[in-house]
Amino acid sequence: MAVFVATLCAILVLTMLSGAICRKTGLPEVVGQIVVGIVFGPTVLGLMQPSSSTELFSNIGIIVLMFLGGVGCDLGLLKRYSKAALIVACMGVVAPVLIMGGVSMVFGFDLMSSLFIGVVFSATSVSISVAVLKEAGRLDTKEGASILGAAVADDVIGVILLSIMSTLISTGSVSFQQLGLIALKQVAFFALTVVVVLWVAPWLMTFAALLKAPSGIAIMATIICLAMAWCSELVGLSYAVGAFFAGIAVSRSDYRKQVDRDIEPIGDCFFVPLFFVSIGLNTEAVHDMHLVWFIVVMTVLGVITKIVGCGLGARMAGFNGRSSIVIGTGMIPRGEMALITAQIGFSQHILSDDYYSTIIFTISLVTLIAPLFLKAALHGAPAKDEAAGDEGAKTEAPIEADSATADIIDAQTADTSAVGMAAPVA
Amino acid sequence: MAVFVATLCAILVLTMLSGAICRKTGLPEVVGQIVVGIVFGPTVLGLMQPSSSTELFSNIGIIVLMFLGGVGCDLGLLKRYSKAALIVACMGVVAPVLIMGGVSMVFGFDLMSSLFIGVVFSATSVSISVAVLKEAGRLDTKEGASILGAAVADDVIGVILLSIMSTLISTGSVSFQQLGLIALKQVAFFALTVVVVLWVAPWLMTFAALLKAPSGIAIMATIICLAMAWCSELVGLSYAVGAFFAGIAVSRSDYRKQVDRDIEPIGDCFFVPLFFVSIGLNTEAVHDMHLVWFIVVMTVLGVITKIVGCGLGARMAGFNGRSSIVIGTGMIPRGEMALITAQIGFSQHILSDDYYSTIIFTISLVTLIAPLFLKAALHGAPAKDEAAGDEGAKTEAPIEADSATADIIDAQTADTSAVGMAAPVA
Repeated sequence: MAVFVATLCAILVLTMLSGAICRKTGLPEVVGQIVVGIVFGPTVLGLMQPSSSTELFSNIGIIVLMFLGGVGCDLGLLKRYSKAALIVACMGVVAPVLIMGGVSMVFGFDLMSSLFIGVVFSATSVSISVAVLKEAGRLDTKEGASILGAAVADDVIGVILLSIMSTLISTGSVSFQQLGLIALKQVAFFALTVVVVLWVAPWLMTFAALLKAPSGIAIMATIICLAMAWCSELVGLSYAVGAFFAGIAVSRSDYRKQVDRDIEPIGDCFFVPLFFVSIGLNTEAVHDMHLVWFIVVMTVLGVITKIVGCGLGARMAGFNGRSSIVIGTGMIPRGEMALITAQIGFSQHILSDDYYSTIIFTISLVTLIAPLFLKAALHGAPAKDEAAGDEGAKTEAPIEADSATADIIDAQTADTSAVGMAAPVA
Repeated sequence: MAVFVATLCAILVLTMLSGAICRKTGLPEVVGQIVVGIVFGPTVLGLMQPSSSTELFSNIGIIVLMFLGGVGCDLGLLKRYSKAALIVACMGVVAPVLIMGGVSMVFGFDLMSSLFIGVVFSATSVSISVAVLKEAGRLDTKEGASILGAAVADDVIGVILLSIMSTLISTGSVSFQQLGLIALKQVAFFALTVVVVLWVAPWLMTFAALLKAPSGIAIMATIICLAMAWCSELVGLSYAVGAFFAGIAVSRSDYRKQVDRDIEPIGDCFFVPLFFVSIGLNTEAVHDMHLVWFIVVMTVLGVITKIVGCGLGARMAGFNGRSSIVIGTGMIPRGEMALITAQIGFSQHILSDDYYSTIIFTISLVTLIAPLFLKAALHGAPAKDEAAGDEGAKTEAPIEADSATADIIDAQTADTSAVGMAAPVA
């Protein structure tokens, strides 16, 4: 306990300082926090160690962060861009599986292991993008809504892929019965979500207000958040999905502002910095130099496959070039789901010890780079008001007349070259 | 993790309901929360189990609660009543050690074990009283300040007594060198506290405001709170003492209101309910009927020795009868320090397995009863404004002309009878 209190205190001091440096230099604050974890963790100085307590706080950090993401997200926008989000998510899974799986075969992995590595890198962890979008005040834009929607869809696809892969590995065939069960659970979860968002949460929030308990509104919001996070974990989804929908549910009540005001310091003071620093703390240094090429190639592909895959998906859904790139970069971060998948591959002997820690390291690296790309992409994208202005009346995903032709050509060039790399091996 | 998320969620739901019931029936909410822990924990239904995670959150709950106690406490009042607090604390240690130690000898314990049981019951855990005083809006009254000051002094005395007892048990004699070291550490801690309260904390809060980071003020307050809690733990005091002074330090800055506004939901939504429910969860049922008398007697004495001991101390310091009873009842709760002391006694074979769990049960029982007494006592005591009005200009602990003579006679009668009980065996 004393060690944890000291660690928590040190993390808050260091992230406060790193935050100040990042604001001065224009870097995303999230990057500073991850770097704090890498520098003070086992990888460099070894002054802090990940523990079950930091892990617990980090997981609650994801829940709080995604909950606030949901509170800040515009449900109207999310609905309007749900079809776009689905296309983005699908393309964002197909590209890494094909390209990174293919390149893994070039590195000498067999078909199954290669496919597995592809699946590992197909899982997006959007909590990092949520932090960057919040910092930039762009959460409730069409790009923000598309990224959040796509991340949810990505999680659903990820769970299905993971269960296909793990039954394939352990039994050599796919159990359609098991897949049906998973699908059924998820349908039940989303049906429950609709009920909670439309009726249960607004009613509960009003009930909490009537109780007039101190912090009653905040406590009820926390209850809804934890309950939904728990339910999503029950059906195999990450906590993030449940917490996100809980945030949306609460945001539809009359107490949106108050919840945001009350819950934000909870995340900022205790849980969220621990989540980002934990990513750094859990990064394992790779000492074997012959793996460096693998890391470099996979990191570059980890970034490119999402920018191109999801960006292309966004283009197909009618976004213009700039918006597509924002959406693509917003889908770069990998997190819990990728780590869990890699862990399963390791425990089922698909990945050797060496390659397991290499892949963990690559996941951290991609996640560290992601906010830099997103911030740069946001810099070029139209601001919130402009976007809201030019969208106003439309109700379907738009096919926009776009002026930023250069961007699309860039994106398409990147795309063909990436596919070109993968083609001979896929 | 999933179990903890579900437990946390269930605890919030149950404490919200118990809180509503307590407000309706006029019971202190803290009692409702402890009862939730007893009913749903291993003692009755067994639906929830204490775990390392609930323990961690519970400990941070104490820190947050005492920090908010410090923020809400009036430093001027605390200073003015510091001498009174010292007398209250001393009397509150002497009474349980003599009386409960004496009665333990009647129950057949040898001198050392009896003395040890007396020491166990001499340690006050004021966090429960802080919650009750906050609920009643009486934290910044002369009684509130005296209770808080006495609790700090009690903790200091407790640490010294505990170290005397444990060296006495293990070596058979008292090491004055070790005692000197402990005293030195504590002096260093209190010197540091003065520096932090007067200069460091106000400067840090202003610095945080200049950084203009989101939640910057709340994060800096948390940093000061955790750092001071950690320091107090380093010198052997409980976290509560450091957190309390951190609260006082922060309250002297210009951001007192904002800190209170930001940190309160953190405690209410995550940590504080877990602290109170944990007390219930960690209560062990006692099945051996011949121990029932021991429990009954010790519980009654646990309550009486503090009301009379501390109440008498308060009278000696010049408080009137009503105020003395409020102060005495405010010192009833036992907590961490008592549990730790009992734990040491158990591990050093001073207490048998049977009597160890019996004493743990008695500590819980006394702590459960305490808020009921305090609320009743507060009901009879003058309200905050009145008290502030009649104190106004005085700078020393007052020798008040008191009208509530009946109360004093009551208290004195209770006192003499209690001492009478103890005299033949002490």
